[in-house]
Amino acid sequence: MDKKIPNYKDIQEAHERIKDFVHNTPVLTSESINDILKVELFFKCENFQKVGAFKYRGATNAVQMLDESKLKYGVATHSSGNHAAALSLAAKKRNTPAYIVMPKNAPEIKKRAVKAYGANITFCKSTLDARESTLKKIKDATGAYFIHPYNNFDVICGQGTTAIEFLEKVPDLDYIIVPVGGGGLLSGTAIASKAINPNIKVYAAEPKNADDAYRSFKKGFFIPVQKTKTIADGLLTSLSPLTFNIIRHYVDDIITVKEQTIIDAMRMTWERMKIIIEPSSAVALASVIENKYLFRSKKIGIIITGGNVDLNKLPF
Amino acid sequence: MDKKIPNYKDIQEAHERIKDFVHNTPVLTSESINDILKVELFFKCENFQKVGAFKYRGATNAVQMLDESKLKYGVATHSSGNHAAALSLAAKKRNTPAYIVMPKNAPEIKKRAVKAYGANITFCKSTLDARESTLKKIKDATGAYFIHPYNNFDVICGQGTTAIEFLEKVPDLDYIIVPVGGGGLLSGTAIASKAINPNIKVYAAEPKNADDAYRSFKKGFFIPVQKTKTIADGLLTSLSPLTFNIIRHYVDDIITVKEQTIIDAMRMTWERMKIIIEPSSAVALASVIENKYLFRSKKIGIIITGGNVDLNKLPF
Repeated sequence: MDKKIPNYKDIQEAHERIKDFVHNTPVLTSESINDILKVELFFKCENFQKVGAFKYRGATNAVQMLDESKLKYGVATHSSGNHAAALSLAAKKRNTPAYIVMPKNAPEIKKRAVKAYGANITFCKSTLDARESTLKKIKDATGAYFIHPYNNFDVICGQGTTAIEFLEKVPDLDYIIVPVGGGGLLSGTAIASKAINPNIKVYAAEPKNADDAYRSFKKGFFIPVQKTKTIADGLLTSLSPLTFNIIRHYVDDIITVKEQTIIDAMRMTWERMKIIIEPSSAVALASVIENKYLFRSKKIGIIITGGNVDLNKLPF
Repeated sequence: MDKKIPNYKDIQEAHERIKDFVHNTPVLTSESINDILKVELFFKCENFQKVGAFKYRGATNAVQMLDESKLKYGVATHSSGNHAAALSLAAKKRNTPAYIVMPKNAPEIKKRAVKAYGANITFCKSTLDARESTLKKIKDATGAYFIHPYNNFDVICGQGTTAIEFLEKVPDLDYIIVPVGGGGLLSGTAIASKAINPNIKVYAAEPKNADDAYRSFKKGFFIPVQKTKTIADGLLTSLSPLTFNIIRHYVDDIITVKEQTIIDAMRMTWERMKIIIEPSSAVALASVIENKYLFRSKKIGIIITGGNVDLNKLPF
């Protein structure tokens, strides 16, 4: 899929389009975390977004862009995570069916969420091959329109609206740090943030155990994710052609972090801020914990990407 | 201790006095919980208050009321819970020492919090006798001023400021529901709420396993708490002369709830709202879950009292 890169105006238009459908989530601060890390942190809380994750922005923008001729046949995707729930709810709000391909071994809690939003679920093996071939069958049978979780112009524009809201509330951030998985949020954030404040530094944070974005960024060519094991289950995906292209041009640096620091950052956020964040969200704070001197005394914006956690499987 | 009952003006004055020292905490809503319970809920999030609990309001008001002659000698209390942390921080902000008597078996996390705020801790046996006699020794030795966690006019006024902020944001609540332990928050809330909106119904929620307030309220005379076992560890205390007197006059009803419903309500809040609330806070939502028909379609305000939870000892 080779599509043009969104510009700031595209993201502004997405913002106008979706702002009545999404929550303008709060920006929280924590005196005690600031004291511990000697930085000034601002947390944009997309864990309070509908479906519990920023993914609802991109899915909503993509579904709102569809005309009646496409809506007739519904939308489809393969995902075991937040994009599946997001697309299901976004489709429900426009009265169009959502067809979701999920691996059999997806967490029960995610299966239940998608079912609760009224989507049609088809289970398959957990390989990428099985997911793609199952999705193709469903598209052929239904005519549904495929909405990729991040290799999609409209999805990226939707995710970028997070940064517009964030910088409206805190315009003078020195840094904005975003966890990177497929790179949809990072792409939209980078484009919008640099347009609003050219001095801002856009950093990505990634688990060392799933560092494909880091390696792609440093080498200058696309390297897919290897078999990996990280608690940040939302960041297991590879970049896509579109997101890699954007990230190369707009992102200042990518920092990788250890698994234990991710757990520590998650726990620190739960205990000090009293908010539930998922492990993938904790990766950004982890990058500050591991680089205290780099960030000392700076104003840093962190996007909390989601709050969907299985309470029966906590790492502490 | 037989003191006069605060009126609304006293609470308004407390509000003016402390508003620059406390967070005006957000009021959150949850579409999905509303859908499940068929009510319209508003949650005043004192889990985001300083020290993670509403107790900081009362402690701050009481400490701010002290004149220089008293501040010289410091403040003292016995508490294993949030009042200890709240008084420690409130004292620190006025540069006066805090002397805290804690039972040896208090949770490590609470001991650490109190220590972190720079208080002087004295450990004792966990009986009320041991706590009171240890406190007396410390008062005699230091001249520190005793600030009771709820049988105290100024503390009650401070807690009542929660309701002023709450009803500023959502003036037309049909009900306001507050967990009841010692009754300080309930007393302040009832006085302020009825003054602001005479039509509002003020309800208390209490664990069936620690139902001294319920029984006192129904019988019309003070009944102390019996040996009890509830997950809502903040609600184990008895009412006091002052709070019982207020509650008799201002509270419309008290509802008791089962332990399992408290756990369910806590889990529902964590999963649906992505916020950390302590078990004592979940008792109010539990009372709605157990009385869906009573509350159907009503606008209900719930005060989330705190978010201090030991993540290593979760009930799920």
